[in-house]
Amino acid sequence: MREAQLDALVCALPMNVLMMSGYWPVLGTALAVFSADGRLGLAAPEGEEELAQAAWPAEIELFKSGSLARVNEGTRALEEALGRLLRRLDVSGTRIGIEDGAAEVPVGYSAVHIYSVLLPQVLSEVNPKWQMEPGDGCLQKLRALKTTREIEFIKAACETAQKGFEAAERAMVAGAREIDVALAARREFALPAANEGSHRADGFAWCMSGPNSAEAGYAFARSQARAIKNGDVVLLHANSYLDGYWTDITRTFVCGSGNAHEELFEAVAEARTAALAVIRPGIAAKEVDGAAREVLHRRGLSKFFTHGVGHEVGFGAVNADNQPRIHPASPDLLEEGMVFNVEPAVYVPGKVGLRHCDMVVVTADGCEVLTPWLSAVSPYATNRTQK
Amino acid sequence: MREAQLDALVCALPMNVLMMSGYWPVLGTALAVFSADGRLGLAAPEGEEELAQAAWPAEIELFKSGSLARVNEGTRALEEALGRLLRRLDVSGTRIGIEDGAAEVPVGYSAVHIYSVLLPQVLSEVNPKWQMEPGDGCLQKLRALKTTREIEFIKAACETAQKGFEAAERAMVAGAREIDVALAARREFALPAANEGSHRADGFAWCMSGPNSAEAGYAFARSQARAIKNGDVVLLHANSYLDGYWTDITRTFVCGSGNAHEELFEAVAEARTAALAVIRPGIAAKEVDGAAREVLHRRGLSKFFTHGVGHEVGFGAVNADNQPRIHPASPDLLEEGMVFNVEPAVYVPGKVGLRHCDMVVVTADGCEVLTPWLSAVSPYATNRTQK
Repeated sequence: MREAQLDALVCALPMNVLMMSGYWPVLGTALAVFSADGRLGLAAPEGEEELAQAAWPAEIELFKSGSLARVNEGTRALEEALGRLLRRLDVSGTRIGIEDGAAEVPVGYSAVHIYSVLLPQVLSEVNPKWQMEPGDGCLQKLRALKTTREIEFIKAACETAQKGFEAAERAMVAGAREIDVALAARREFALPAANEGSHRADGFAWCMSGPNSAEAGYAFARSQARAIKNGDVVLLHANSYLDGYWTDITRTFVCGSGNAHEELFEAVAEARTAALAVIRPGIAAKEVDGAAREVLHRRGLSKFFTHGVGHEVGFGAVNADNQPRIHPASPDLLEEGMVFNVEPAVYVPGKVGLRHCDMVVVTADGCEVLTPWLSAVSPYATNRTQK
Repeated sequence: MREAQLDALVCALPMNVLMMSGYWPVLGTALAVFSADGRLGLAAPEGEEELAQAAWPAEIELFKSGSLARVNEGTRALEEALGRLLRRLDVSGTRIGIEDGAAEVPVGYSAVHIYSVLLPQVLSEVNPKWQMEPGDGCLQKLRALKTTREIEFIKAACETAQKGFEAAERAMVAGAREIDVALAARREFALPAANEGSHRADGFAWCMSGPNSAEAGYAFARSQARAIKNGDVVLLHANSYLDGYWTDITRTFVCGSGNAHEELFEAVAEARTAALAVIRPGIAAKEVDGAAREVLHRRGLSKFFTHGVGHEVGFGAVNADNQPRIHPASPDLLEEGMVFNVEPAVYVPGKVGLRHCDMVVVTADGCEVLTPWLSAVSPYATNRTQK
C-alpha cells in the first residue's frame, strides 16, 4: 500500500475480504477496509454478523440488506455503515485503492454478489473527496504469499480433500458410473460444514474414465454416466474448499489389475518428481515448468501436454491472475510461502488422459507437498474387482 | 432495446448469456451480442465450443483462453474474436448496451469470472466509436418474463429437485444428522449432470432441525451435525439447478409421529393457500404478499415472518433486482410468464422455524404451482421411526 501510495484499501470480492480479515462473506455484499496505518474494518450484512465477529479483530459495522419497509434497500444502508466505519478507522487521506479489474470469484453460495461499477459510486457518496485508485496489484501480491495461518487452513482443506479421494477410490469398482465416483468424493468434501467451528465446506469433483479421461484438460469436462470397466484409466479431478481455502487436486487410477498405459503413468510420475526437485525460493517459475516438460519431451509426449505445469491455489482453485504461474512464459520468481499446484499430464486425444495434480508450498529450502497421499503415480491398481 | 435506443446489447454474466442464447457458459468469459435487428452472436472460449454450438442458432467466434506461448492471453484474443463477430453481425449503430451495475451471479462452476470494468475497455478497443449505455434495465425485463421454453427448463429443474426432497424425506429418520439429510437431497440434484443431453446439474441443500430451524431465515443458515430426534421440526431448504435454470424450494417436516406445532403448520399452509388464490396477471405483487401476511397477522404470527412472500426464481435462486418482488412495498405488477416463489414462514426465535416455499408460474387466468409435491403443509408426519 505504501508503494502504491494508498491511504486505504477497500475490497468486496469474498476472496479478498477473507484474505484481509479472516471472514469469508456468504452473500458477497460485505466490504473490508484496511487503512494505511494497519487498522481493519468490516461492513457486513446483518445476517452475517456472527461470521464477521469470528474473524480477526476489526471494527465492525452492520447494514440491513432487506426489510419489509422497502422493496430494495439500495445502497443507503451500506453507505451509512461505511460512513460510520470510516469515522471509526479515521481514514484521513484521499487515495483509496479498490478492486479495479476482471476477477475469478470462487463460489461459496448459490450466487456471488458483485458490486462492479457500483462500489466506486458508493465510496464517492460516502466521501466525495476520495479518488479511486487501482488496488488489484496490491491485492494480488498479498494473495500470492501465504501466511503461516493461511497455510494451516490450506492444509486442513487438503486433509478434507484426501478423505474425498479415498472415498472415491473405494467407489471405483468395475460397473460403477463416473458420477457415482465423483459424488462419493464430493460427499466427504461437504461433511465438515457440519462441524463445530467450521462454517462452509464443499467442492466439485469430476470423474472421467476410459476415453473420457482424454478430455480432462477442458473446463467443461464432467462426470458422465459411463460405467467404469476393469482396466480403465480413471481420472478424478477436484476443487474443494474449507471456509474459503481451496484445493486443486487430481489423481489418476487404473480400475482393476491390468495397466495398458504403464509408460504414460511412469512419464507423468517422472515429470512430477522432476518439477518437485527444482522448487525452492528464488528459482524462476518457468524452470519448474521446464523441468516437468523436459521429461515429457524426452519421452515424445510433450505434444500431449497442453497447459502449464501449475498455478497458484488457495484463495481459489484457479485464478489466471494469481501468482505464481508455473508456465513456460512465466515471469514469476518463487518465494517462500507461495502455494501452487504441480499438474503434469498427458492427454492422448480420443484415447486416454492422465494427470497428477499435487499442491505444494515453497519452504525455506525447497517445498512441502501438501497432498502427499495416493501419490505413487504409476499405477494405482485399485484391484477392487479382485476382492 | 428499441425503447432504450440500443443498437446492440452485449452481456457476459452467465445468466444473461443463457437468457440471450440458450448457452450457459462454464467459466464466465463468453460474451453474447444481440443486434437491434434480432441477430445473435457468441464469443466463446475454445474449451466451450461444444456448449456454444448446442445453443440457439448464432454466429459463433471462438477465442483462446490460454496457450503455452503466453502466460496470460489478456484480452487480445477476445478482442479479435469480438471484432470478427461484429463484422458478421453487421452492427452499425454506436449505442451499445452493457451490464452496468451490481449483480447476483448464480454459480455453476468452482469460480465465476467477472469482467467488471474490463468489458467496456474491451469494447472500446474493438470499436472506438462505441458509446456504452446502461443495459441492465433491458436485461431485467427480459429475465422477468419467461418464455414457454424457459418454463419447460424450469419445470425440469423442479422435477429434479423433487427427487432430492423425496430422498431427503426418506433420510429424515430419528438419529440422522442434518448434514446427512441435506446431502441425500444434494446427491439427487447432481445426478442428472451425467445424463445425455444435460451438461451441468447440482445444487445446495440446507437442513435445519429442532431449534436450528428458527435460524432458517438467514443466509448463513447451514446444515449442522445435530442428530434429528423424534418429534423435531425439520426444515429442508434447497437451491438446485439444471443447465442454468434454478429452483428455490423449502419443505418443513416433522420427524416421527407427534407434532407439537400443529397450529404453526396450519398457519403457514393457510398463508400459502391465500397467496396462491390471488395470483393472476394484472394483480399487484404486493397483494400476493398481503394475502399471505394477513393470514399470519390474524393468527398473531406476523412478527415472526420477517421477509417478503417471494421473489423471481429461474435465472438464479434469488436476485434482489429481478422482478417480480412479492413484497409489501413492491411496485411490480404480475404478468403471464413470470416465475417466482411463494414462501410464507414463521420463525420463532430460539424455538422453531417453518417455511413452505413453492415455485409458481403466472398463467393466463391464475397460476400453476411448479412444485406440487409434498405439499400438504400441515404436518408431514414422516413416521420413519415407526416403520
